[in-house]
Amino acid sequence: MTDTSTPPRPLEGLRVIDLTRALAGPYATLLLAGLGAEVIKIEDPRGGDLARENSPYVGRDGVSIERMHDDDVSISHLSRARGKKGVSLNFKAPGAQTVFADLCRTADIVVENFTAGTADRLGIGYAVAREANPGIIYCSLSGFGADAPEGGKAMDVIIQALSGAMYTSGAPDAPPVRMGIPIADMLAPVFAVIGILAALEQRHRSGVGQHVDVSMLGALTSFVAIENWSALAAAGMPARTGLTVQRLSPFGVFECADGYVAIVAVHEKLAQGLFRAMRQPDLAADPRFATRDSRVANAPALEAAITAWSRTLAVDEVVARLEAEGVPVAPVRHPEEALSDPRVMGRGETMPIAHPRYPHQSELRTAGIPIRFSAASTGFDATLPIGIGDHNRDVFRDLLGYDEERLRALGDAGVI
Amino acid sequence: MTDTSTPPRPLEGLRVIDLTRALAGPYATLLLAGLGAEVIKIEDPRGGDLARENSPYVGRDGVSIERMHDDDVSISHLSRARGKKGVSLNFKAPGAQTVFADLCRTADIVVENFTAGTADRLGIGYAVAREANPGIIYCSLSGFGADAPEGGKAMDVIIQALSGAMYTSGAPDAPPVRMGIPIADMLAPVFAVIGILAALEQRHRSGVGQHVDVSMLGALTSFVAIENWSALAAAGMPARTGLTVQRLSPFGVFECADGYVAIVAVHEKLAQGLFRAMRQPDLAADPRFATRDSRVANAPALEAAITAWSRTLAVDEVVARLEAEGVPVAPVRHPEEALSDPRVMGRGETMPIAHPRYPHQSELRTAGIPIRFSAASTGFDATLPIGIGDHNRDVFRDLLGYDEERLRALGDAGVI
Repeated sequence: MTDTSTPPRPLEGLRVIDLTRALAGPYATLLLAGLGAEVIKIEDPRGGDLARENSPYVGRDGVSIERMHDDDVSISHLSRARGKKGVSLNFKAPGAQTVFADLCRTADIVVENFTAGTADRLGIGYAVAREANPGIIYCSLSGFGADAPEGGKAMDVIIQALSGAMYTSGAPDAPPVRMGIPIADMLAPVFAVIGILAALEQRHRSGVGQHVDVSMLGALTSFVAIENWSALAAAGMPARTGLTVQRLSPFGVFECADGYVAIVAVHEKLAQGLFRAMRQPDLAADPRFATRDSRVANAPALEAAITAWSRTLAVDEVVARLEAEGVPVAPVRHPEEALSDPRVMGRGETMPIAHPRYPHQSELRTAGIPIRFSAASTGFDATLPIGIGDHNRDVFRDLLGYDEERLRALGDAGVI
Repeated sequence: MTDTSTPPRPLEGLRVIDLTRALAGPYATLLLAGLGAEVIKIEDPRGGDLARENSPYVGRDGVSIERMHDDDVSISHLSRARGKKGVSLNFKAPGAQTVFADLCRTADIVVENFTAGTADRLGIGYAVAREANPGIIYCSLSGFGADAPEGGKAMDVIIQALSGAMYTSGAPDAPPVRMGIPIADMLAPVFAVIGILAALEQRHRSGVGQHVDVSMLGALTSFVAIENWSALAAAGMPARTGLTVQRLSPFGVFECADGYVAIVAVHEKLAQGLFRAMRQPDLAADPRFATRDSRVANAPALEAAITAWSRTLAVDEVVARLEAEGVPVAPVRHPEEALSDPRVMGRGETMPIAHPRYPHQSELRTAGIPIRFSAASTGFDATLPIGIGDHNRDVFRDLLGYDEERLRALGDAGVI
């Protein structure tokens, strides 16, 4: 007998109060939602998450740079608010803190990514949440850490610059390289989720929650720090080496007639396979290329020989010839092609998104949950706050038990 | 009364059997160790983790490209094996599977990063671990997922090429950019830790463990997928834009006399601040730059004006002037400088490492745990397998209860 029901998601039964905006915070709560937590996104009734204003939009006429119709939705919002419920709450209105405390009492986790100090000033910081619910795990995502003196907006490009990451890519004497993936915005939330889940594990022992504090600068700098930059410098080895790494030669990215390929032929057997694929097996006997040490010593000549060959052939041909010789090789693909790789789509690592009302107006793909479980599923509930406060009734009435009169009063007073 | 004792680490009491090698897998178990789990690293007695052979090394004479003395240690190993115990076990020797099963019975988590299918073939796959301990959470890290047909070594540069990431950085028509951070090797383990902790949370409900399966290609492609590449293309907006993003102009990295700075002045108030910092406040009235839309439409002219100014000044001067106007700005720093930022060191996001016997022979820094907890600490026990099997007695005798005779027999048979 086969069980055809969908397995549970690993974080089912946990509830998240989501105070986040823009990218870093919403990506953290997106991961929690995809792992099965119930996420309640709070937005200011007077405008909501700024990501709602990010171009491009999608709607009845497909993708557009400007908003054409009232029900056009920013693709950023469509992708980042997946699976979340949306309620409105104006923290500057009297009474909002009571509503926030009521939400905390029902929840396990709070996530915020205001500038350091702002949540406390708004009366929705960790101290307030813990007072309402000592079990709460309260995660703050900020540019430089919750303990940083205030000021200094932490945009992705600012953090990339400070972290050293921009001087890890590119040729040795070239300008720095801005990474096209918003890596500072994306990496901190991944560590935030680790921190939240680790605090949950500790709560099973201690019975109480705590504050989890992740810095964008710290998360990205820790990644930069895995390479031994100062040791390489101390040993006189170049650290920033562009498309290839000559201390491992042949290793890196090489030009073809119609694009680029990545090739790794560090070891003896692989180098010989490469030379056969080049139809120049004699190179294996050439004293410049006969041993690993000599290949490294003569890396510029070796790279020139490879490029002189690869440049005459299409990417597909170079890949086919090297694969036939068992040499690790891959085409350098563009994002659109990579996102549509059947392997990646089949595992849910990228996923389709569409406007709920106009599902056939585009072929958009976005980030999925890149983790597979043998006894659990991942994925997003079919819920999304298209309008601000779309789920006010589900949350304030059905979850918190507020009656119609109270809801009306809160609405009239501009609290929700 | 102040409690001056160190708070517990969040994952204390959990035990990890670590079958990993190279970078991706060891970084996953490094994060678990830093969060307080006990990690037992298993190495083949006939050679151990290949990262032990990574140049540069550190020893009594400081940092060197080649191993000069018997007790020189690869900096890769020093940094990745921190806080781990090390035992030897040759899985190809008869009897090794019994030892592995005994280890699984004492453990909560197993992590491996063999090529897909290899762990099963060696008799140390999930099925074997679960048979020994149904509560075990068994995490596989691989290039393309545990379900991928075999073959194809998944080096970082191969995965970077396939993921589309290389065509997100750099100028629109420039060659692809290899990221200098081994981002494919680093990102998959972060998701592996999320998967492991989510499965732990589910185990509190279900009582049983499961298999967690993370693909390097999937993890990195999901990051690439957060930007709406195909929507930008459909809307006719360039996606790959080099050092600046003209659709947000002025935004990006600009040249100074002695380096580069990142500047973000997207909004009205910030653009005016920038013009004042440039001592050209009249630009705010220039019809080309007077509104956000006009600045975007005339982005090349605006960037030329900024660069003509910034190029004449030192980085420090540009930063000081923009900070005085409240405009987000940062110097583009080199990794060495970034790793030594007092903010980052103070939060343990980068940490010193040293050879245990020659602690003063170098000033090396490496990755820390970029998460701060209010009721927990992070960090690494002062344990490290300098030699293969350094902790055989602690683990095989004290934890598993093997007696001296059995240890001798296992050693004589080449099992450990």
